[in-house]
Amino acid sequence: MHKDKIKAILQSVQNGQVSIETALQDLSKLPFEDLGFATLDHHRALRKGFPEVVFCENKTTEQAVKIMEKLAEQNVVLATRTNRQMYEEIKKSRANAEFNELARTIVIPYKGKEIRIDRDKTILVITAGTSDISVAEEAVVTAKVMGHHVESLYDVGVAGLHRLLNKKDKIEKANVLVVVAGMDGALPSVVAGLVDKPVIAVPTSVGYGASFNGIGPLLTMLNACAPGVTVVNIDNGFGAGYFASLINR
Amino acid sequence: MHKDKIKAILQSVQNGQVSIETALQDLSKLPFEDLGFATLDHHRALRKGFPEVVFCENKTTEQAVKIMEKLAEQNVVLATRTNRQMYEEIKKSRANAEFNELARTIVIPYKGKEIRIDRDKTILVITAGTSDISVAEEAVVTAKVMGHHVESLYDVGVAGLHRLLNKKDKIEKANVLVVVAGMDGALPSVVAGLVDKPVIAVPTSVGYGASFNGIGPLLTMLNACAPGVTVVNIDNGFGAGYFASLINR
Amino acid sequence: MHKDKIKAILQSVQNGQVSIETALQDLSKLPFEDLGFATLDHHRALRKGFPEVVFCENKTTEQAVKIMEKLAEQNVVLATRTNRQMYEEIKKSRANAEFNELARTIVIPYKGKEIRIDRDKTILVITAGTSDISVAEEAVVTAKVMGHHVESLYDVGVAGLHRLLNKKDKIEKANVLVVVAGMDGALPSVVAGLVDKPVIAVPTSVGYGASFNGIGPLLTMLNACAPGVTVVNIDNGFGAGYFASLINR
Amino acid sequence: MHKDKIKAILQSVQNGQVSIETALQDLSKLPFEDLGFATLDHHRALRKGFPEVVFCENKTTEQAVKIMEKLAEQNVVLATRTNRQMYEEIKKSRANAEFNELARTIVIPYKGKEIRIDRDKTILVITAGTSDISVAEEAVVTAKVMGHHVESLYDVGVAGLHRLLNKKDKIEKANVLVVVAGMDGALPSVVAGLVDKPVIAVPTSVGYGASFNGIGPLLTMLNACAPGVTVVNIDNGFGAGYFASLINR
Amino acid sequence: MHKDKIKAILQSVQNGQVSIETALQDLSKLPFEDLGFATLDHHRALRKGFPEVVFCENKTTEQAVKIMEKLAEQNVVLATRTNRQMYEEIKKSRANAEFNELARTIVIPYKGKEIRIDRDKTILVITAGTSDISVAEEAVVTAKVMGHHVESLYDVGVAGLHRLLNKKDKIEKANVLVVVAGMDGALPSVVAGLVDKPVIAVPTSVGYGASFNGIGPLLTMLNACAPGVTVVNIDNGFGAGYFASLINR
Amino acid sequence: MHKDKIKAILQSVQNGQVSIETALQDLSKLPFEDLGFATLDHHRALRKGFPEVVFCENKTTEQAVKIMEKLAEQNVVLATRTNRQMYEEIKKSRANAEFNELARTIVIPYKGKEIRIDRDKTILVITAGTSDISVAEEAVVTAKVMGHHVESLYDVGVAGLHRLLNKKDKIEKANVLVVVAGMDGALPSVVAGLVDKPVIAVPTSVGYGASFNGIGPLLTMLNACAPGVTVVNIDNGFGAGYFASLINR
Amino acid sequence: MHKDKIKAILQSVQNGQVSIETALQDLSKLPFEDLGFATLDHHRALRKGFPEVVFCENKTTEQAVKIMEKLAEQNVVLATRTNRQMYEEIKKSRANAEFNELARTIVIPYKGKEIRIDRDKTILVITAGTSDISVAEEAVVTAKVMGHHVESLYDVGVAGLHRLLNKKDKIEKANVLVVVAGMDGALPSVVAGLVDKPVIAVPTSVGYGASFNGIGPLLTMLNACAPGVTVVNIDNGFGAGYFASLINR
Amino acid sequence: MHKDKIKAILQSVQNGQVSIETALQDLSKLPFEDLGFATLDHHRALRKGFPEVVFCENKTTEQAVKIMEKLAEQNVVLATRTNRQMYEEIKKSRANAEFNELARTIVIPYKGKEIRIDRDKTILVITAGTSDISVAEEAVVTAKVMGHHVESLYDVGVAGLHRLLNKKDKIEKANVLVVVAGMDGALPSVVAGLVDKPVIAVPTSVGYGASFNGIGPLLTMLNACAPGVTVVNIDNGFGAGYFASLINR
Repeated sequence: MHKDKIKAILQSVQNGQVSIETALQDLSKLPFEDLGFATLDHHRALRKGFPEVVFCENKTTEQAVKIMEKLAEQNVVLATRTNRQMYEEIKKSRANAEFNELARTIVIPYKGKEIRIDRDKTILVITAGTSDISVAEEAVVTAKVMGHHVESLYDVGVAGLHRLLNKKDKIEKANVLVVVAGMDGALPSVVAGLVDKPVIAVPTSVGYGASFNGIGPLLTMLNACAPGVTVVNIDNGFGAGYFASLINR
Repeated sequence: MHKDKIKAILQSVQNGQVSIETALQDLSKLPFEDLGFATLDHHRALRKGFPEVVFCENKTTEQAVKIMEKLAEQNVVLATRTNRQMYEEIKKSRANAEFNELARTIVIPYKGKEIRIDRDKTILVITAGTSDISVAEEAVVTAKVMGHHVESLYDVGVAGLHRLLNKKDKIEKANVLVVVAGMDGALPSVVAGLVDKPVIAVPTSVGYGASFNGIGPLLTMLNACAPGVTVVNIDNGFGAGYFASLINR
Repeated sequence: MHKDKIKAILQSVQNGQVSIETALQDLSKLPFEDLGFATLDHHRALRKGFPEVVFCENKTTEQAVKIMEKLAEQNVVLATRTNRQMYEEIKKSRANAEFNELARTIVIPYKGKEIRIDRDKTILVITAGTSDISVAEEAVVTAKVMGHHVESLYDVGVAGLHRLLNKKDKIEKANVLVVVAGMDGALPSVVAGLVDKPVIAVPTSVGYGASFNGIGPLLTMLNACAPGVTVVNIDNGFGAGYFASLINR
Repeated sequence: MHKDKIKAILQSVQNGQVSIETALQDLSKLPFEDLGFATLDHHRALRKGFPEVVFCENKTTEQAVKIMEKLAEQNVVLATRTNRQMYEEIKKSRANAEFNELARTIVIPYKGKEIRIDRDKTILVITAGTSDISVAEEAVVTAKVMGHHVESLYDVGVAGLHRLLNKKDKIEKANVLVVVAGMDGALPSVVAGLVDKPVIAVPTSVGYGASFNGIGPLLTMLNACAPGVTVVNIDNGFGAGYFASLINR
Repeated sequence: MHKDKIKAILQSVQNGQVSIETALQDLSKLPFEDLGFATLDHHRALRKGFPEVVFCENKTTEQAVKIMEKLAEQNVVLATRTNRQMYEEIKKSRANAEFNELARTIVIPYKGKEIRIDRDKTILVITAGTSDISVAEEAVVTAKVMGHHVESLYDVGVAGLHRLLNKKDKIEKANVLVVVAGMDGALPSVVAGLVDKPVIAVPTSVGYGASFNGIGPLLTMLNACAPGVTVVNIDNGFGAGYFASLINR
Repeated sequence: MHKDKIKAILQSVQNGQVSIETALQDLSKLPFEDLGFATLDHHRALRKGFPEVVFCENKTTEQAVKIMEKLAEQNVVLATRTNRQMYEEIKKSRANAEFNELARTIVIPYKGKEIRIDRDKTILVITAGTSDISVAEEAVVTAKVMGHHVESLYDVGVAGLHRLLNKKDKIEKANVLVVVAGMDGALPSVVAGLVDKPVIAVPTSVGYGASFNGIGPLLTMLNACAPGVTVVNIDNGFGAGYFASLINR
Repeated sequence: MHKDKIKAILQSVQNGQVSIETALQDLSKLPFEDLGFATLDHHRALRKGFPEVVFCENKTTEQAVKIMEKLAEQNVVLATRTNRQMYEEIKKSRANAEFNELARTIVIPYKGKEIRIDRDKTILVITAGTSDISVAEEAVVTAKVMGHHVESLYDVGVAGLHRLLNKKDKIEKANVLVVVAGMDGALPSVVAGLVDKPVIAVPTSVGYGASFNGIGPLLTMLNACAPGVTVVNIDNGFGAGYFASLINR
Repeated sequence: MHKDKIKAILQSVQNGQVSIETALQDLSKLPFEDLGFATLDHHRALRKGFPEVVFCENKTTEQAVKIMEKLAEQNVVLATRTNRQMYEEIKKSRANAEFNELARTIVIPYKGKEIRIDRDKTILVITAGTSDISVAEEAVVTAKVMGHHVESLYDVGVAGLHRLLNKKDKIEKANVLVVVAGMDGALPSVVAGLVDKPVIAVPTSVGYGASFNGIGPLLTMLNACAPGVTVVNIDNGFGAGYFASLINR
């Protein structure tokens, strides 16, 4: 793709259509747009298969909305760590924006078209407790907006193993599993021992005392004794949903 | 599969072929073998798509060899964190055992048959420095023994970015990428920014001072600003190779 | 007991049998013996139900043997973190000393009498892997020397859950459970979810990378999501065996 | 218990009362109830000797109340980390709910019957300071609701040892001891040196500076030099009360 | 300079102009001023080439303003970690005070004269993301007030390497580079690999989970695999701007 | 003192004045008072030379005031980590209570008598910055209420060494030095290198980034390369003032 | 002292005895000696009341001996963290050098005169266990060489409180207490609760698991709930002995 | 430079001298050399002003020597963290290789020519203690091989401030300062307070206990209260010498 562009430039030089100086400039040009405070990466959709995602945690409502509007001109928009205020504001200009309060996401379909689920293999998102659901939902929204079929199985932690084992069929049918857990973070190890599919573990900051805002389950998951487990950052539902989508083909 | 077995037992009860007591015992029986110090998991090959792997770091040569011999009766064997002494010992009974000193692995093909590479998609294993190669080779051996085509690209860390960019074609052609780095651990972020394929990051304990035996690169990778990265334990080449194999289909 | 002694002293004062000065001295006297480098606590057997245990890790062979010999005059001796050299030395004067190389313990029965198992309830010691067995055996030896019936179940970690579930009967019959695990330390959570008996969790330093010599499993166990779990120090098999004995009545 | 159910199913198959398909379904059925956001574990009372406890810290008032109401239909309810608002809400439907502000617990007796204390052995809950009382009370409420006799002894830290030694009788009479301490966390070591009963140590986040929200006393307790001590998570009064109840028989 | 003063005192003693007692006092006199709560260091401008900077984070508005007023009598004033309230207050007495809300700085030019940019070599301040801009601006303001020419390049993190490579000319032309990054903190390594100029790395507390308020990027930068990188404290834009000014000659 | 009491009891037994039972009770009696939530230690003044100090951080205003009132009946009262609200409340019953807002202390002189400074040796309290003054003042108030002469020297950190060296006379005249510092915590090392008197170092949580709320200066002080330095907890001005008083004789 | 020297120089300038240039040089001259690899601080004995101490841990035998010999020319020598090899070497030139293997110290009396104990107040050095004795002995040797009367009390940890309480008289008679403990580090808190004298706490690296080479007891001691405790670095017996000597007057 | 090459390629395309395919290949070619285990970066000398440096810590003697020989063909070679064995080996083929045992470096001048010192401004390397000298010497060798004039000042830590102040002239004359310190790491703060030149702080792993292998001084230096300080990794003398060289112009 990149090579094709260079080739075209070389050909136009060969053909005498453009001067060397122009060719030099053409070679150095890369598509991005400067908003002053942010350098938008429009061609990421091309390069990475999905457009740039807006991480809103440290942004003002004004900044977040401005970036969303700009991106929405060229592609579907996914914004994470948003809040109701940002949603109220973007809705004014983009009426079809969708807010998921639990997942704290905003999705703006491109040119008003609904997100199409075009992959038939299932990504299964599992949580150990009810408090992990917010992080899990961020993974669900992310994978759906990337066109994947997603199912969920919540509150099936290892303290009551039968709840999990009872759903073994559902678990075995999934193609990729995202397992979200706080506290002891033991669930991904157990799940990975049951299946031959990749398990993406997401530690959450749910817990208290020696969970140390997620360090506890993070270490548990990195040390998972069952092979077939990788780990993303604490509370990083988006990262897990994104990675799951990359491998669900 | 499990269900089928239960069904068969129920049928033999229905048929009056076996007593209830016998059925009870049959239901509780699961295939594993007890060596006194280790409970071998023979049917993992079935359940996980690959037999149990022998982690030799805390085992005596005697224990390691005994487990390898037992497993070798039923399947291909992969042993990690081995050493030359273990190899010299197992070679006596299993002449076709293969030792990779750099990767510290022993592989024993099943019934003398060579490992067959039957997947055509490429797993690319990249390292930042030459000191990371040992960990990378563990990933390479693991993925190969699981039947995958593996290529490697070593010593292309971000301090000399052109070394990496120069191999962009190779990188873009890979289906899954394993990126191994110590010190600043920055390479997976950069690689993930270049491709739309899953990147499995492996922090290594290579470095000194504030690398803290791998904590430095581990945190870097968990915080990777490019989406599409997941992380395994420090120096866990095996885990990365195994996970890469699970998703390389 | 303490009160009785004081009472006796008061009575002899009342009777005029001893002077006040003598009584004062008697009141301050407490049974212990000074070896120069160690203050032996002979009456601990009385106070705690079991004599002082000799922790040999930071002691010279000479110191360890001297303390063992002194204690052996009055009671059964249990020494932990010993080595073969200490055993060879103590055997010269105490021929009936028993060395357990795996557990790294020395036991010297009192007056040559064998340790009697006089409690019929079972303490079950479980390990996740084969590398945890050394720590587990320290717990086994400790509980046995304290007169308890002990059974063990090794290498049944959560990566192959069926190995554990298959032994559910054995697990459910135990009165107290000691669960030893390194790496992800997930086993105690799972076991505690299956039974209504107390589970004592022992993190081990087995593992590598982010297990950080036992911090990983330690945190997992402190954060255990199943109630009924308490935790002892990393690799502290003795502490777990001792505590299990206290509650196995 | 579990075995009995399977036996019954097998017998009805043998008798021709149920088809194999029905038997298969019966075998896979396990009692739990799905609220959408929470999978209630009704048969935990059976399995663990006490019903599921509601941990309210990360739940909305609405979620907490809904779960409490559902559980109250089948058993006594214990909710921890609650607040006055949750209590006001549950009181509307369950007038006999009892709120303990200090312990932050809600208890709903089953079918209006008062909690019966039916164990005569004493669990003694001790604190080092007045600021540890809140955590201690959570342990007290938990043990009482599980039917145990509980006494308490507060503000007897090691800085004024006579306060503790003066209560030696009370301490020696207890069957199980829960010792709660923040700051230096030294009290459990001292108490365990005085008695031959199990001591459950609870570190609290009380303190400042180098107590690091409970890490200080947590490490002290894990390193307790007196045998007979195990540790639960920071501020985990519930866990200590639960474990104490398991062993107070 | 210091030596000259001593010499002058010695000469006046030699000349009999001053008594020994007076000379003793003169020798001990050093220029500083006591405000009760702060010891102002007026001659730092002399010694360090720039007057004392007011760090306002732990000061009351009243304290901050009083110090600023005092310092403003003798030199240009730079105050960091200020807020709008402090600005409103100082503006009353110093109308030419300049507030930079993003950088949280207040600058008061000396005797109403504008800050003069008198160094022609460029300090380039780069950020990985938009959330790092606040810290970057503190560096910019600091370097400008010290008389340096500063340019900036924001939101060019390694996740989209082309954004950075596209600006290679600007980067190569800079004399000193300040690189500000949170999350994985990988940008300084990459930038240092491209240029032969000193790179001052500033980790920021931007990020979540395993970024641990800046520990993540701090370690990454200390472990930078490219030579030519040094590191300042987390979020310390001022320190980076100051150091950059010292070396931009 | 304790021995004298026992002697008296023994004598009255010898004299037949009291029965053995009464003597037993007398021996076990120790002076303390129970407020329900707090066990006051009235005889600490005897044992430790100063009455119990009220640490108010985790107490309600009501609890704090009740304890202060009780203690005020028998001795001077020092309360630390208080606030204006507590002061307003205690003032109602104890009009002579003195509040120091900066130090966050309340002092209630005993029977209305002013605190008398009766030690002529000087305790010098030094701070590195103005933000450390609050902690320093807690030390000052503590030492004064214990009857010591205290002087202070604030904002003389090592960044402008002349400020410190200029006060060398004052520093050399002190009998004990309390040195309070946040950020790099380097001041105690430097001061201890200048004098032959004990230096008590107090790390403060002042700073940002890698100061980690006081861990930075705490480590610096523990590693002080000059002998003659000991360290108290982070922000523990009271502990430093108390210890300084113990040794200022 | 310093002032006197300056005065003398000024006077000789006034008298015309020395030129200004010479005076300048005289003022800048300070007594120290350069060995190439070490700058000896001969006048520390003057300034600090005790000569420079040689810390030998990171020095070669050759370096250590050379420094000891140089220092021995002017004063008594104390070297810490030495070993037998260094002793054998220094003995060749300084026959009266004394080696304490347990404390790992070498002492060389000045001009062959024995160290004189000239302070009658007692420094009491206490250890919790026998493994802490090595660190304690370093404190003992240090205080003795500084002329103090030292007593010791070893192996009286809190696990058997009676061992400590039995020695209450000895403890109460001491003027300064050094308390050395590893593992839970609880002893200083308990001792400080018994006396009104300063307690210097020394954490040791003795222990295992969660003692983390001394971090456990270090935190315990910093958080000591009894006032009157300060802390030195892990295993720093020298620092404790030195500080104890400074305050034992 | 890079642009020039592209220009040349474009011109030869324009001239018809090369085909587009050839041009494409030429554009992708970048100068590096593959040794199998290492990708040598020959044109770093061009890009960074100094050739690639060989970090030998994790390399076998064979690997290290092979890389050194290859690099020596094109430029001066600097190898760090070497040992005598590597030196003995490389000397065989490169007789002019220079080994610095203290600094653990090997330098191979290019074509036998001596390293020329061509910068007249001074880099001053200072250490706090004698144990820091090894790290300091690595900085000295690095800066010298890069052509700079270097002076050193060793063992002038803050415990004896006069040793440092006595050398104030030397310190003030330096253009760049590298300050190396372990233990409390306080020296860079003090030095930076004395001069108006950039200070590069190097924490060392010298020390014990709470120095935690360099974490202590690392934090001290990051928190340096004097502006003008930046920090490199623990024990990273090379990094400091390299950075100092970059700015010493």
